[in-house]
Amino acid sequence: MKSFMSMKYASLKPYVPGEQPLSVNELIKLNTNESPFPPHEGVVRAAGDAAKRLNLYCDARARELCEAYAALIGVSPDEVLPTNGSDEILYWAFLAYGDSDNPMAFPDITYGFYPVYASLLGVPARVVPLKDDMSVNVDDYIGIRAHTVLANPNAPTSVAITKDEIERLARANPGHMLIVDEAYVDYGGESCVSLIRKYENLLITHTFSKSRSLAGGRLGFGVGCAARIAELNAIKYSINPYNVSSLTQAAGLAAIEANDYYMAKAAEICEIRDDCAEKLRDLGFNVLKSSANFLFLSYGANDARPLCEALRARGILVRHFVGPRTLPYIRMSIGTRGQMNTVLEAIRAILREG
Amino acid sequence: MKSFMSMKYASLKPYVPGEQPLSVNELIKLNTNESPFPPHEGVVRAAGDAAKRLNLYCDARARELCEAYAALIGVSPDEVLPTNGSDEILYWAFLAYGDSDNPMAFPDITYGFYPVYASLLGVPARVVPLKDDMSVNVDDYIGIRAHTVLANPNAPTSVAITKDEIERLARANPGHMLIVDEAYVDYGGESCVSLIRKYENLLITHTFSKSRSLAGGRLGFGVGCAARIAELNAIKYSINPYNVSSLTQAAGLAAIEANDYYMAKAAEICEIRDDCAEKLRDLGFNVLKSSANFLFLSYGANDARPLCEALRARGILVRHFVGPRTLPYIRMSIGTRGQMNTVLEAIRAILREG
Repeated sequence: MKSFMSMKYASLKPYVPGEQPLSVNELIKLNTNESPFPPHEGVVRAAGDAAKRLNLYCDARARELCEAYAALIGVSPDEVLPTNGSDEILYWAFLAYGDSDNPMAFPDITYGFYPVYASLLGVPARVVPLKDDMSVNVDDYIGIRAHTVLANPNAPTSVAITKDEIERLARANPGHMLIVDEAYVDYGGESCVSLIRKYENLLITHTFSKSRSLAGGRLGFGVGCAARIAELNAIKYSINPYNVSSLTQAAGLAAIEANDYYMAKAAEICEIRDDCAEKLRDLGFNVLKSSANFLFLSYGANDARPLCEALRARGILVRHFVGPRTLPYIRMSIGTRGQMNTVLEAIRAILREG
Repeated sequence: MKSFMSMKYASLKPYVPGEQPLSVNELIKLNTNESPFPPHEGVVRAAGDAAKRLNLYCDARARELCEAYAALIGVSPDEVLPTNGSDEILYWAFLAYGDSDNPMAFPDITYGFYPVYASLLGVPARVVPLKDDMSVNVDDYIGIRAHTVLANPNAPTSVAITKDEIERLARANPGHMLIVDEAYVDYGGESCVSLIRKYENLLITHTFSKSRSLAGGRLGFGVGCAARIAELNAIKYSINPYNVSSLTQAAGLAAIEANDYYMAKAAEICEIRDDCAEKLRDLGFNVLKSSANFLFLSYGANDARPLCEALRARGILVRHFVGPRTLPYIRMSIGTRGQMNTVLEAIRAILREG
């Protein structure tokens, strides 16, 4: 079959998202780090109300949403940029800052989209191995002559580094962007939002897909100094000015108003996570210290695929990343306490069966 | 202020969308070709229902939506690709097919985003003047050695060409893509969807922003042979797999189920448009023959800005495009019959005042 695509994509390997079954009623779905808690009732109401005016375009600038989110995280409205999930702001950052002379550095084990963006856009990737304990060594990036993107806490490892370490890197590489993907920051990480005016090379990305129970709504944010956000707005207005629908703007605004509900749920996830991690360690698992809403765990050094398949046979979905260092691990999102008890029972049964 | 952006964007001029006031209650808003009719009540219900499950990711493949839309337009589900507005599928098409060796051809007067995409992506633009009557001359594109993108009906001119002319071009340039942007096709244009299996170089783009009263919901579609849609899916899965939210998928599905309502409203717009065009011609305006939900009109050869401003002073928003050939024209969306009567009254008053 003839192709019309530009030859530059000859070796492009698209990202493979986790499975999204059409019906999840029979499953315990711990494969894409969603929140097990429904959105606040205010979100449901707001989306329904916004639907009545869908014949009109949304506000391209999303002014109300920007103002509310900026107030929540203690910055100015011109320091935030809402996007169609945080994938969009991450893509724009690669597009804006990377080129053949400006590579992008990131860890060997991290969010699988970074190498895909680099490949798509022809941006050279500088892949930096995590330490043996799967933590990021900031010194590896100092003087690297590349923009850097770090997920903090990192995924799929769940491991966080400190705000001080991020600041040290931002200070050390002032001529290059440092993009910090804080998708999981509400589960025990330290946000670097307070540093955006001090370091003009810092861009933070946030998502409402995790702690804000809005994965299906697609809402992310870029947070940076006003000059960085203005640059990224130039990209936005050159691609898709109406990138966040009225429905999602309304849902996001209502989620911000219900912040206490979501933060209480995030705290509950942390408790369930720590309890679950302890029980898994008791069963002989190696469980990395998690600052996210998921665990990264291995049982011996063998390929974890049989464990994934055994869990799946019991209606439990987890994620397995095929790669030289990730093969023995599974990534398991934290569900409700009841779900995690069922999962622990299943794991005990699988171990018994050997 | 220091910039971190890639030097390749030094001359980038982002698109400028039409004004979206936060409150439209006092205005007659005819500047962005929205439908004046609200979404069907089924759409409102569906969006509210979908909001209850927002903690889960949307279906990246949007299977139900693809099946419903494919059935509606008479193709297969693997021949359609839903996007975050049709801006997204147009951007992906420029990204997928254009490169420094593969320019993109389009008219001098057309949707303002085409030159922006070309500039952003470093794709050379071949700008082809419309004929004096502002119609597309297909012969100008035959043998042009470039991919071609044509809006049909064209915007902001409102003028359509026939399906036979599009087919003649697709057949004549088999080695290059022909992208037909059918945003306004439901107002009297001829769709080329039935040609997608015959011409593997044809990609049609649709939007729910106009005839489907879903501008704020952000839903567009690419329609092409399965091989083209597979290529564009490779782009999608390299940028943003969850590009259409659960809310918008549900709203779109409900809009498809209410197709009769929307088609009746589109027919009503055509009636109001033709009546309005006739009255404007009686007043001395040059009004191009419209196959869209808007009119493109001039009054003499002078800059139309004073007319725009006089209308705005009366609470009526229209669009004016500053360019050598568009300066005397305004683009005016078709509102309800009551709104258009008010507009005609206002225009008569402005003409009287000279």
